[in-house]
Amino acid sequence: MHKPIAITMGDPAGIGPEIVAKAFRDAADVTQGCFVAGDVATLRRASRWLAGVGAIQLPVVVIEAPGDALTVPPRCIPVLQVVADPAPVTVGAVSALAGRMAAESVVWAADAALRGDIAALVTAPLHKESLAAAGMPHCQFPGHTEMLQHRAAVAAGVAVSEMPVRMMLANDELRTVLVSIHMSLRKAIDAVTTDAVLQTLQITAAALERLLGRRPRIAVAGLNPHAGEGGLFGSEEREAIMPAIERARAQGLDVDGPFAPDTVFMRARAGAGTVGAFDVVVAMYHDQGLIPVKYLGVDKGVNVTLGLPLVRTSPDHGTAFDIAGTGRADAASLVEAIRMARTLGALSVAHVAGV
Amino acid sequence: MHKPIAITMGDPAGIGPEIVAKAFRDAADVTQGCFVAGDVATLRRASRWLAGVGAIQLPVVVIEAPGDALTVPPRCIPVLQVVADPAPVTVGAVSALAGRMAAESVVWAADAALRGDIAALVTAPLHKESLAAAGMPHCQFPGHTEMLQHRAAVAAGVAVSEMPVRMMLANDELRTVLVSIHMSLRKAIDAVTTDAVLQTLQITAAALERLLGRRPRIAVAGLNPHAGEGGLFGSEEREAIMPAIERARAQGLDVDGPFAPDTVFMRARAGAGTVGAFDVVVAMYHDQGLIPVKYLGVDKGVNVTLGLPLVRTSPDHGTAFDIAGTGRADAASLVEAIRMARTLGALSVAHVAGV
Repeated sequence: MHKPIAITMGDPAGIGPEIVAKAFRDAADVTQGCFVAGDVATLRRASRWLAGVGAIQLPVVVIEAPGDALTVPPRCIPVLQVVADPAPVTVGAVSALAGRMAAESVVWAADAALRGDIAALVTAPLHKESLAAAGMPHCQFPGHTEMLQHRAAVAAGVAVSEMPVRMMLANDELRTVLVSIHMSLRKAIDAVTTDAVLQTLQITAAALERLLGRRPRIAVAGLNPHAGEGGLFGSEEREAIMPAIERARAQGLDVDGPFAPDTVFMRARAGAGTVGAFDVVVAMYHDQGLIPVKYLGVDKGVNVTLGLPLVRTSPDHGTAFDIAGTGRADAASLVEAIRMARTLGALSVAHVAGV
Repeated sequence: MHKPIAITMGDPAGIGPEIVAKAFRDAADVTQGCFVAGDVATLRRASRWLAGVGAIQLPVVVIEAPGDALTVPPRCIPVLQVVADPAPVTVGAVSALAGRMAAESVVWAADAALRGDIAALVTAPLHKESLAAAGMPHCQFPGHTEMLQHRAAVAAGVAVSEMPVRMMLANDELRTVLVSIHMSLRKAIDAVTTDAVLQTLQITAAALERLLGRRPRIAVAGLNPHAGEGGLFGSEEREAIMPAIERARAQGLDVDGPFAPDTVFMRARAGAGTVGAFDVVVAMYHDQGLIPVKYLGVDKGVNVTLGLPLVRTSPDHGTAFDIAGTGRADAASLVEAIRMARTLGALSVAHVAGV
């Protein structure tokens, strides 16, 4: 018996609601058993926008509980009203209302996942400025990841620092997990410590084993050009990265590196019909991993939050205020995110059941 | 009247001689008017290796002066003996002899280019350890670029510091010029100054205008994630990069940025039948630019040294000691480097003639 998957609607002023509606319209096999956590009227409006560009208008079905999603027929959009006091928002504009509605959807879905009511959550994009304008408690979080980390820590009764998370970016060709994300490059260098790299390796190994059903082959990128060229171009490889690799290996992980950053992603890349040399590359900082993942286009990039006791994926793009409301936004990345959530969610449930 | 192009043979213990021979064999149109600056016996040996894997053995034609290359028929390998006291070297091994032979070829070709005897030089790979073992004066230079910079400074009677160089990496899809190359990431951050970025922009604009025959559209990558997100993730964009962009614009250059590093390369990429949004991306450090250029494979990457009063290109790979002597090494990147040198060399000559 599978559990349903919640898709949060994202910022109602952005492209979130319409790409969610488009996913239900164009990828019925992938969205089966999914529902929208958000606002019924917002999804009805989004469905109308899509119909306006020459396609049928999908009906919105109001559901009362997550489990109802499993019996809704295809090409309907099941929506659970989880936003309190909703109101229409102006498309393409920052607002406290939009920020609050987006945030409440995420908080609800996070708690539902932590309770075990849903198998996974897929989050449509929110807008950082609207979130910041949304007032407490939402405005204290820069984005989804920190909100989810906070809810997970509260549910587990631990400090946020004991609930480490890592971001994985994945597409058809490449997966990368980042040691750090939103900080200056200078601070990111300081964040390359043995503990941080080891923790990233452990989180990566656990998540990829769940995804692949076997022990993953992990490559570790160096921090410096040519991975330091034997200490000539920096010492972080010797002082921080290699000790982490050695400790991870001692724990039974299949880890190689540190490799020259400029070729390790190319080596890990799975081409047309070919398998990459590694299942995942652990990148030392934000752009090191994101430049190659995004290089071939962001259409199908999926963001996966690793380390939390819940499954969360999201598309690899923002709210695109400039085209919101036109029905033109591409749902491909969201559909891939739902597909990835299905895989991780199903295996996660099986994994828990098997314990 | 075109001038010939010199191809230096590279380290005789590596794949250099055999990929040079392969280029003459398989890309007669591209190598027409080119000659090898190096050692006759080494090229004869390389030509034999190729014949050993099932193809005809190209004859080596000993020439007396660069201009003789223009009258050598196709599918011959014209070689000018520029190495003093050559001897057979052991394939796949570091040696002082191999380092000296490689270096003498480069020094000769650099001086020939600076004298105006050749239109360009294309350098096959040398081995850093052999070069370091080669004794003075060669051992004081880490690689090709520094050797060329030194010869150019000597010829111009100026200090090396007045002969700034930048590395451009290019393939069919993307060009990138690097603010700095072989130093730790921490030092590379310190090297992102307004002067260094402005100088990179000026060198890039001059070189690309020669290559394209029009003013290039230059994108500048930020240093930090999201190009600093308005100062939230670092101040280098505001303090160093933006002032350089403003000064470059005041000088008439077509420069945009700083852009988020994780998407600017994707935007500049020319896909199948599509033109990228920019002609070149100025990258703030080694791996930022090299990760995307190498991501699709290093087969056709070309390295171009910008800023010197000579045209020099090279393939984007090393000596590959592990396969040297087998005839298996791929000459594609070298052929692309020769093609690029032809374009830059021809236009360079026309440019000088037009002054």
